[in-house]
Amino acid sequence: MNRTLIVLTVGALFAGTAAAQSSVTLFGIADLSGRSVKNGSAGSQKQLASGGLATSRFGLRGVEDLGDGLFARFHLEAAVNPDVGTTDTSKFFGRRSTVSLEGRFGEFRMGRDYNPTAMNTFDEPFGLVGVGTIGNFTYAGSAALGSGATTVLRNDNSFAYFLPSKLGGIYGSAMVAAGEGVAGNKGAGGRIGYAAGPLDVGAAFFKTETASNTDYDQSNIKAIYKFGFASLNFLYDTKKFGSLKRKMTMIGTTIPFGQSEIRAAYATNNHSGGAAGSGFANADDSKLMALGYVYNLSKRSAMYATVSRITNDGAARASVSNAPPAGMLGGEKSSGYEFGLMHRF
Amino acid sequence: MNRTLIVLTVGALFAGTAAAQSSVTLFGIADLSGRSVKNGSAGSQKQLASGGLATSRFGLRGVEDLGDGLFARFHLEAAVNPDVGTTDTSKFFGRRSTVSLEGRFGEFRMGRDYNPTAMNTFDEPFGLVGVGTIGNFTYAGSAALGSGATTVLRNDNSFAYFLPSKLGGIYGSAMVAAGEGVAGNKGAGGRIGYAAGPLDVGAAFFKTETASNTDYDQSNIKAIYKFGFASLNFLYDTKKFGSLKRKMTMIGTTIPFGQSEIRAAYATNNHSGGAAGSGFANADDSKLMALGYVYNLSKRSAMYATVSRITNDGAARASVSNAPPAGMLGGEKSSGYEFGLMHRF
Amino acid sequence: MNRTLIVLTVGALFAGTAAAQSSVTLFGIADLSGRSVKNGSAGSQKQLASGGLATSRFGLRGVEDLGDGLFARFHLEAAVNPDVGTTDTSKFFGRRSTVSLEGRFGEFRMGRDYNPTAMNTFDEPFGLVGVGTIGNFTYAGSAALGSGATTVLRNDNSFAYFLPSKLGGIYGSAMVAAGEGVAGNKGAGGRIGYAAGPLDVGAAFFKTETASNTDYDQSNIKAIYKFGFASLNFLYDTKKFGSLKRKMTMIGTTIPFGQSEIRAAYATNNHSGGAAGSGFANADDSKLMALGYVYNLSKRSAMYATVSRITNDGAARASVSNAPPAGMLGGEKSSGYEFGLMHRF
Repeated sequence: MNRTLIVLTVGALFAGTAAAQSSVTLFGIADLSGRSVKNGSAGSQKQLASGGLATSRFGLRGVEDLGDGLFARFHLEAAVNPDVGTTDTSKFFGRRSTVSLEGRFGEFRMGRDYNPTAMNTFDEPFGLVGVGTIGNFTYAGSAALGSGATTVLRNDNSFAYFLPSKLGGIYGSAMVAAGEGVAGNKGAGGRIGYAAGPLDVGAAFFKTETASNTDYDQSNIKAIYKFGFASLNFLYDTKKFGSLKRKMTMIGTTIPFGQSEIRAAYATNNHSGGAAGSGFANADDSKLMALGYVYNLSKRSAMYATVSRITNDGAARASVSNAPPAGMLGGEKSSGYEFGLMHRF
Repeated sequence: MNRTLIVLTVGALFAGTAAAQSSVTLFGIADLSGRSVKNGSAGSQKQLASGGLATSRFGLRGVEDLGDGLFARFHLEAAVNPDVGTTDTSKFFGRRSTVSLEGRFGEFRMGRDYNPTAMNTFDEPFGLVGVGTIGNFTYAGSAALGSGATTVLRNDNSFAYFLPSKLGGIYGSAMVAAGEGVAGNKGAGGRIGYAAGPLDVGAAFFKTETASNTDYDQSNIKAIYKFGFASLNFLYDTKKFGSLKRKMTMIGTTIPFGQSEIRAAYATNNHSGGAAGSGFANADDSKLMALGYVYNLSKRSAMYATVSRITNDGAARASVSNAPPAGMLGGEKSSGYEFGLMHRF
Repeated sequence: MNRTLIVLTVGALFAGTAAAQSSVTLFGIADLSGRSVKNGSAGSQKQLASGGLATSRFGLRGVEDLGDGLFARFHLEAAVNPDVGTTDTSKFFGRRSTVSLEGRFGEFRMGRDYNPTAMNTFDEPFGLVGVGTIGNFTYAGSAALGSGATTVLRNDNSFAYFLPSKLGGIYGSAMVAAGEGVAGNKGAGGRIGYAAGPLDVGAAFFKTETASNTDYDQSNIKAIYKFGFASLNFLYDTKKFGSLKRKMTMIGTTIPFGQSEIRAAYATNNHSGGAAGSGFANADDSKLMALGYVYNLSKRSAMYATVSRITNDGAARASVSNAPPAGMLGGEKSSGYEFGLMHRF
C-alpha cells in the first residue's frame, strides 16, 4: 500500500542505459513554526505559521530527453498552508506552471512564472519567507503602488527565454507577458548576471502596462560574495509608478558552520512621491533587522529560529507579519520570532 | 530529493512474478501555445493559451489485479491551466473521477465521467481542443440550448456499464445518472459501435430530464476509416430541446508521415427552432475550416501549429475562442492560429 | 508513460543498506456506493454517494530517517468526492496537514489534525462514514451546539505531542490549538489510553474557547474488546456548551469470517438543556440501528452493503444522510441502505 518514488528512469532501471529517457518528480516542502508577533497597537499574537524557512508547497515536475541535447520540461507547483490545510484557492498551481523546450540554445519557457526581477531577490539570507524576510518590504504593503499591476512577483501568460548554462558564468533571461485584456498583466523585462568563483552579480528590470498611461517599473541589482567562512549579500530593489517610488536596500550574511547556519540581514525601505500620511511619502520609511539560526537535521530537514524587528517612520506600516494586521498604526514598531521545523520531500 | 515514478509493480520488481498486483500512475499533460485570435468587432488578441493540442491536466489512476480476471480501478483527473496556474475551482477532479470493477463481464464504473455521446466526439482530428476543434460548435455557445442540462459533456453521479473488449469488434456502454434533486442532472443513455480493421463506426444518445417537462436530447454518429496513408473522420452530432435544435456535421482527416501529422476538418453548425436574432434561428448557421500540423518530438512531446476560421451567418456567434468574447456580433467572422508545445507525463 | 510507485527507498534499492533514508507515499481511497435514503417528509432519494466504507481521499505523506532514532514526517491529505469530482474548496488538504519530529521521546506534530476526542471515535464499526455511522449523531446536526467552535472534528493551528509507542500499552497525546484571533479555534485537550492483548480502552477531552465566556467541551470514553471471533466496541461521547448537552452512547460489533466481515451498531443520542422544540431539549433524543456486510476482494478493495435506521423523538432530526435534508421534520424516521465499492491505493 505504501509506495515510494524513486530517483530513476525506466530506461536506466531496466536496460542499464546511460541516458535517462524521462522522469516525473513529486516534490514539496512542509514547513511550520511556532511564531509570536507584536504589531504596535494591534498587539501580540501567538501563531502556528507556515513557511518560516521555506514556503510550504507541493508540485510535479518532469523532464524528457528528446535526444540531440533537446529536453522537454514541465513544472506545476502549488502553495500549501499546512497550519490550516489550505491551498491557493484562486490559482492552485500559482507558484509556477510552465512548459519548456530546452536545448543547447537555452530554454524557451511558457506559462506562469517568476518575474525576472523576483529571481534576483531569492538569494536574500531569509529566502523571502518568515518574520525576517525583506519580502516584508519588497512584496508587501501594496508593492504594486496602486498601479493595479499583477506582475509584482509572478507573471501569468508569460513567454521567456533563458540563456544556456554554459556561457562562462553569464546567465540571463528575457520575458514578455501577454495581457489578454486584463489590465496590469502585460509586460516585458529581463535579467542579466555573472556568476563565477565567489562572485554572483545580477541586474533585472520589468515594465508593466497598467490601466493608465503610466507604466509600473520594477528593477533591482544583487551581489553575492562568498568568503571562505560566510556569504555576503547585497540587494537594491526599486518599484516605481509615476511619482511613487519604493527603494529597498539590503545587506545580509549567511555563515555556515558544521550542520548549522547563522543568517542576518539589515534593510531599509524608502518611499517617496506619495501624499503626506499615505504611507508612500518621503517620511514613510522603514528599517528591518533580522537574525536567524538554522540547524540542518539532514539535507532535507532543518530546525530553525528567527527573530526580527521592523521600525517604521511617519505613516509607514511595514510588519514582520508581511501584511500589517488591522489595528496597527503608521509609525509603529513590529517585531516577531519563530521556531520551526522544515522538511523537504 | 528527486524521485521518479517507475512503470513497475512491487511484485514484478522483487519477485520476478509475471502478474502485476497493483499500480498507481501519476499522469498528465502540459500544453501551452502562443495563440492569436480575431473575433469580429471584438478585435484581435495575442494570448498564451492552454491545451492547443490536448487539454492540460494531471491525475492519478490505478488498477489492482484481484485475480480470476477481476480488476479494481480508479481514475481521478484534474484540469489544469498552466498559462495562469489555475485548476477547476468548482470541480477539482472534474475531468473524471471514477471507481470501477472490471471483469470478463465488462466494466461497472461509477462517478463523474464522460457522457456516452461525448465519447464519440473524441476522435475528431483536433481532439476537441484548440482553435480548430469542432468543440467550438458542439460544446460551446449554450450547447445545453437553455435547458439547464448539466450533462452536455460529462455527468455527475453516474453508473455505467461497458461491454467487455473482446466481442469481435463490438463496443458499447450504457449510463444512468442520478439527479439527487438537482435539475438537469438526471439522465440515461448509451453508445454502441463496431471497430474492426480500418473501420470504426459508432452511435450514441443521451436523454436528460430538465426542470421543465421537456427532455434535453443528445445523439450522434461517428465513422472513421483508416486508409493506408490517412484517416477519414465523419461526425454528425445533434442536440435538441423542444423545438430548438443544433446539428453539427464534420468531415475531417489525419495524415501521418514520419514524425509529422497533418490534420484538417470542415464542419457546419446548423440551428433551427429559435426566434429570429436569437442565434438559434434557422438562419443562424456557422462553418468551420481548420488545418493543423503536428511534429512529434517523441511519443510524449510534440510541437504543433493550427489555423482555423469560422464564418457565421445570421445571428450565429461561433468563435475559434470557444466562447465568443464580449463585443463580437452575430454573423461576424472568427479566425485564429496557434503554435504550441505539448508534453505528456 | 505509465509509472508505478514502489515501496522502496533510494538507499535500500541501490546500496542494499538496511536503513531506509526517506520515502514519499502517494495514497488514497476511492469509494462510491449506490445509496437510497428516506428522510421522513423529505421523502426518498436514490444517490451515488462517496465514502460509504471509507472517506474518499488522496494524499502525500513521507518520512525521513534522520538517524539516532529521529524521524521527520509530513502528511498532506485531501478529501475527494468522486461522485461529482469535487474536493474541499475551502481547505484542500483539510483532512490533515502536518509536519512532525519523532524520536524515542515520542512525536511532536504541528498543523491541522484530528482533535484528540475524534481519535477515540475512529474505531466504531462503521468507521465514521456511510449511512450506518454514529457520526450521524456525533458530528452532525450542529455538533458545536451553537458555540461557534471550529474544533469539533479537527483543529487548525495545532501543536500536539504523542507518547512514544513502546510504553507497555499506554498511548496518549496532548494538543493545544492557537486561536490566531478567530473565535472558536483556540483550545486544549488530550487523550490517554491502554491497549494490550484483546483490550483497548481510551479517554479524551478537549476544551475550546468560544466568542462568549462559556467554553465548548468535548469528552469521550471508548472500549474495544477482541474476542476470538468478534470485536465488541463501546463509545460514550459528550459535547457540552453551557446548559446544552449531547450524549452519544454506542455499542457495536465487528465479526470477521474468511474474506467477509459483519458489522453492527446500536446507538442513542440524548440532548438536554435546550428549549422545547429546538432539537436540543430533553425530549429530543434519537436511536440508530445499523447492520453492514463487507466482502474484501483483496487487502485493498472491498464491496460492501449497509442498512441503517434512525428513529427521532420530539424535535430531534438526526438523519442517515448526516445533515438532515430540507423538508425533514423533527421526530421523523430516517432510513437508508447502500451497496458500494471501495478501493485503496
